[in-house]
Amino acid sequence: MLSAALGGRSGGGGGVGGLWRSLRRPGGAFSAAPPAAGARSLASRSSSLPFPQDRSPGPRPSASNVKPLDGVKILDLTRVLAGPFATMNLGDLGAEVIKVERPGAGDDTRAWGPPFVGKESVYFLSVNRNKKSIAINMKNSRGAKIIRELAAVSDVFVENYVPGKLAEIGLGYEDIKKIAPHIVYCSITGAMPWVFNFCPLPLIIQWMLLKRVWLPLVHSLPPGYGQTGPMVQRGGYDSIAAAVSGLMHITGHEEGEPVRVGVAMTDLATGLYACGAIMAGLLQRYKTGKGLHIDCNLMSSQAFKTKDGYIVVGAGNDQQFVTVCKVLHNGLLMEMNHPTAGRIVVPGPGVRYSEFAVSHPKPPPLVGQHTVEILKGMLGYEDNAIEELLHTGAVAQHEVR
Amino acid sequence: MLSAALGGRSGGGGGVGGLWRSLRRPGGAFSAAPPAAGARSLASRSSSLPFPQDRSPGPRPSASNVKPLDGVKILDLTRVLAGPFATMNLGDLGAEVIKVERPGAGDDTRAWGPPFVGKESVYFLSVNRNKKSIAINMKNSRGAKIIRELAAVSDVFVENYVPGKLAEIGLGYEDIKKIAPHIVYCSITGAMPWVFNFCPLPLIIQWMLLKRVWLPLVHSLPPGYGQTGPMVQRGGYDSIAAAVSGLMHITGHEEGEPVRVGVAMTDLATGLYACGAIMAGLLQRYKTGKGLHIDCNLMSSQAFKTKDGYIVVGAGNDQQFVTVCKVLHNGLLMEMNHPTAGRIVVPGPGVRYSEFAVSHPKPPPLVGQHTVEILKGMLGYEDNAIEELLHTGAVAQHEVR
Repeated sequence: MLSAALGGRSGGGGGVGGLWRSLRRPGGAFSAAPPAAGARSLASRSSSLPFPQDRSPGPRPSASNVKPLDGVKILDLTRVLAGPFATMNLGDLGAEVIKVERPGAGDDTRAWGPPFVGKESVYFLSVNRNKKSIAINMKNSRGAKIIRELAAVSDVFVENYVPGKLAEIGLGYEDIKKIAPHIVYCSITGAMPWVFNFCPLPLIIQWMLLKRVWLPLVHSLPPGYGQTGPMVQRGGYDSIAAAVSGLMHITGHEEGEPVRVGVAMTDLATGLYACGAIMAGLLQRYKTGKGLHIDCNLMSSQAFKTKDGYIVVGAGNDQQFVTVCKVLHNGLLMEMNHPTAGRIVVPGPGVRYSEFAVSHPKPPPLVGQHTVEILKGMLGYEDNAIEELLHTGAVAQHEVR
Repeated sequence: MLSAALGGRSGGGGGVGGLWRSLRRPGGAFSAAPPAAGARSLASRSSSLPFPQDRSPGPRPSASNVKPLDGVKILDLTRVLAGPFATMNLGDLGAEVIKVERPGAGDDTRAWGPPFVGKESVYFLSVNRNKKSIAINMKNSRGAKIIRELAAVSDVFVENYVPGKLAEIGLGYEDIKKIAPHIVYCSITGAMPWVFNFCPLPLIIQWMLLKRVWLPLVHSLPPGYGQTGPMVQRGGYDSIAAAVSGLMHITGHEEGEPVRVGVAMTDLATGLYACGAIMAGLLQRYKTGKGLHIDCNLMSSQAFKTKDGYIVVGAGNDQQFVTVCKVLHNGLLMEMNHPTAGRIVVPGPGVRYSEFAVSHPKPPPLVGQHTVEILKGMLGYEDNAIEELLHTGAVAQHEVR
């Protein structure tokens, strides 16, 4: 468990060991995780197969490589796409992913198809490798207790339920934090049907008919509107976006026929955001020893649009626009003063963290606005050396400093 | 610099200090980075404004929060969208981003518009906050030398040039690694025009006409085909995808008029991949003390398609399919044996790392396949307790273990 490695306050069988011990041993940081002998070294930028992951028909590299998330335990309560995609990516990086499913049916996507490979849904197979499944009835109080016990010995807790639902059964962030203060608890709410904003509906239907897109009819959908705000209880519905934007993940069986699978770009982007946010949470825990709550909500990073279908720029003091954005997007705007453009407003990050704020941003720079500052401050160049570099054109400084 | 904090082999003014020292001091992990006093605590899951980033009209939280990437220096040689979006996200998390631009014109997107705010491109403004700009002529040998000097005191090096181009001027991974063995060097090659795969071209044009989409005519485009393979020298072209999929980033000025901005979803996804991959690289450096080369190439995670426009499933021994994929996608497939479905093939991760391989994946689990294993192994439950849980329906075990 990473928390052990970090000396974090583990609620479970933590203690101080592993990487943490090795970091405290002089020179131990290297001995803790020696580079795998089987890993191919990177020969050159332009060689044909420099990376060990190249899956050529020949032998694969040894599996003894050290991965960045080796030893990290992830308790994964997510279903459908965004969450499972995020945890699959973390599993690829070495994390141990415990997928919690309801007994019997399991993850909704297990039933999504065709296509199927045998009885297994291609959709499900494509985003759930490298996971272990534990079937728990969370509505059973003993089932919920087992989840709390698992959380206590895990590093990361990921869920994509409708906000408040897990708190009802004692599995909300505040509940889990009490027994696992080291936990990185990530709530994923993604899947705004963004395609409606950018594509007129008749064209979508026309395209779907043209391509005979398979559109899953789903009844159980992941939440889509963040942890706060008036739409907090409404589920997201990405199935049409899924059908339209089909992008990344397909899979197959050697005897199968060609099929088309539509996958939701927005959900995948939410998954990528969540994946990065969880790693940011782990990095944060390296620093502070404490866990945090992450609200990963792709609504936050959607383009702001008005009803007439235009993207709106020019916010600032326009209260109406701000109000619209507050309602729709939980107010994720950033204001800043630009040296020449004046006051500007840009959409903020798509992820929010309980323990720190992404505030007081610096405005985008002018070309070479900080040249002299960086040469002096980071590299210690003397004034006359900088003058010469400016004179010869090796560097340039914008007049606004 | 993070490398100092980690005790990494800094090429610059490294040494052992900061977080590293504090980690070695008993109890120091907490004192090194105390939680900011100004950070609001998270009251409850369903309260209206639990996160400090909520930009309500009221006062903002203090900026004294500790962020996960505080102290991390990023040397950013990327242009256009994917790279700048990645580094902006890292800057939001506390990293110091040094944006290297060519003197005069700077980043290509500075000229992309309308819309402009004053003389500043909205496109540029939307993905370049929280950065410092240094204008350097890299073709000048003294300019290239300055970049190497900056790399030596940085933690992360990010670039999205056509593979081989930076090596020509002594800025390739092998060059930088020599002077900065701690460096996390990320090469971004994104921007496959995926929309061509999923949308017939006439529909795209029809939609563009209908929506009067602004389509930037760009001459300088980021590379789009990874660090290896036959298409390595071809630039990516995401401008049409940008026009069609316009999604996230718009910005504006308080006196501007509504405008529409098309932004490339694929580029943004590549940026999110890169952002996560760089954090994975930093986590890896915590473990090994060494840097690595990251090949972040969204081509890798695109759906595999044949010429007739169908997504192919059923790979396995089908050599022709494998060959097609090798040529187009650098072989990023993963094979595994599923307990009931047999041998399956799924697309692998979109990012490759020089120091470890994402290999030997475990197949997606059946529902409850590992229930008993987890209850025993992680929680130490006795057999009779497990039997009772199974009997009452609190948990379930799949017959395949």
